[in-house]
Amino acid sequence: MILCSEIKVRGYHLDAYGHINNNRYLELFEEARWALFERHVDIGGFARRNLAFNVVNANINYRSPAVMGDVLEIYVALKKVGSKSATLYQEARKKGSGIIVADADVTFVLAHMGTGKAVVLDDEFLALLDKFRSEHSAS
Amino acid sequence: MILCSEIKVRGYHLDAYGHINNNRYLELFEEARWALFERHVDIGGFARRNLAFNVVNANINYRSPAVMGDVLEIYVALKKVGSKSATLYQEARKKGSGIIVADADVTFVLAHMGTGKAVVLDDEFLALLDKFRSEHSAS
Amino acid sequence: MILCSEIKVRGYHLDAYGHINNNRYLELFEEARWALFERHVDIGGFARRNLAFNVVNANINYRSPAVMGDVLEIYVALKKVGSKSATLYQEARKKGSGIIVADADVTFVLAHMGTGKAVVLDDEFLALLDKFRSEHSAS
Amino acid sequence: MILCSEIKVRGYHLDAYGHINNNRYLELFEEARWALFERHVDIGGFARRNLAFNVVNANINYRSPAVMGDVLEIYVALKKVGSKSATLYQEARKKGSGIIVADADVTFVLAHMGTGKAVVLDDEFLALLDKFRSEHSAS
Repeated sequence: MILCSEIKVRGYHLDAYGHINNNRYLELFEEARWALFERHVDIGGFARRNLAFNVVNANINYRSPAVMGDVLEIYVALKKVGSKSATLYQEARKKGSGIIVADADVTFVLAHMGTGKAVVLDDEFLALLDKFRSEHSAS
Repeated sequence: MILCSEIKVRGYHLDAYGHINNNRYLELFEEARWALFERHVDIGGFARRNLAFNVVNANINYRSPAVMGDVLEIYVALKKVGSKSATLYQEARKKGSGIIVADADVTFVLAHMGTGKAVVLDDEFLALLDKFRSEHSAS
Repeated sequence: MILCSEIKVRGYHLDAYGHINNNRYLELFEEARWALFERHVDIGGFARRNLAFNVVNANINYRSPAVMGDVLEIYVALKKVGSKSATLYQEARKKGSGIIVADADVTFVLAHMGTGKAVVLDDEFLALLDKFRSEHSAS
Repeated sequence: MILCSEIKVRGYHLDAYGHINNNRYLELFEEARWALFERHVDIGGFARRNLAFNVVNANINYRSPAVMGDVLEIYVALKKVGSKSATLYQEARKKGSGIIVADADVTFVLAHMGTGKAVVLDDEFLALLDKFRSEHSAS
């Protein structure tokens, strides 16, 4: 898996139980994807072709609470590819202990911004995604 | 399915594509669950027994974009129950057209606030959840 | 003052102190402005003239904590108008007790979407804003 | 002024105009205060004395739009101190150009968590705040 981003848990992330609010995790995972893509993907090139990354499904497990002061590391790995979609596995772990606080499968398509239709993923993009593949054998 | 809440899409819900931001949906679905529970469930009774509703999994499909001015109706139905967890199916539809913009399966447990452990769902609570059951002959 | 919107405080609004998170108030106040404007202002007309409502200053006082289950009413009144800007006074009060939990002066301009420049507020719009004027003598 | 934090503007920060959403700035400014305080202030010591940092006023100017890909630097400086409150000046600037996108005066108190009352700021804390003072002679 690829370590994509790191965030320190602050008061404004927390809910009334003193735990990071569930709804924040999708934002943390989105941040990690942007960080990954900007390093490896020509996002501008897709935009010029009028293509946008659209998430079509997110399946997230909330495993263990994170509290103020915890530092979370967000990892990403390619889980599977279809002809028109790809699924990334993402994991938020506590730095130090490695405890998994949440993980998610996030499936996206490349959609044409005019029609909204998903396009077939081309070989160049598939080759790139392949770089994110991992055996899931932790960091 | 039970209509639990209704929201008008505002500018601050939108992302750069002019669509409601994906991360907002979990908040809309959470709002609908609170609205449902406060009508039917003795939330205070659970709190007095030191029990909290903890979401352990959310599996959400983003189906169709919603834009400024759309009114979304959020429906909830019981999907399944286990001994220690229950899964609600939730759906956000455009009022009027009925177009589904997003739906989700949300699984929760009742966790003891001291230990964090999920407790066995008792008969009274199961009977209550049963009221939310539906034929689900939608999607 | 004009009662524009009402919201019930939920778990996801709260911070680790069990109080509504400060950063949420600007969103509640924005919701109230949209609710007010859609009742009284031809927003579509402004959009067709390529004009957008842009907030240029928000000055917010956090006065008293709100907790889960509180119902907040958001009031709006015109505070002052300049040639190119107008300031609304907004107040979030607990329904029932009338306790003010937060209030804000929010100053906006009408900006041309092409140039980003604020335009002079025309007489028709000023007449409309004048309807929101109040002596601040509560609801 | 002290550079406290840095953030890259992502899609999920944006509103329908493609600009960073106004309501996000208070969160960015809060992040910068936490980052500053954790470097210089014994936050745990205040917590043990049952004292919490409570923002009582935020006065924010939205000066220039920030768009996707911009990197924002958040600066903080002490603006003034009273007997029971202190005001920080905070500024979000585009890295590189130095363009100010937003700035704010944020006033906080140290409140006793039991009573909610603001306490008199002691000499030790005032001495610490004094380190954040600056001539405000902008970039």
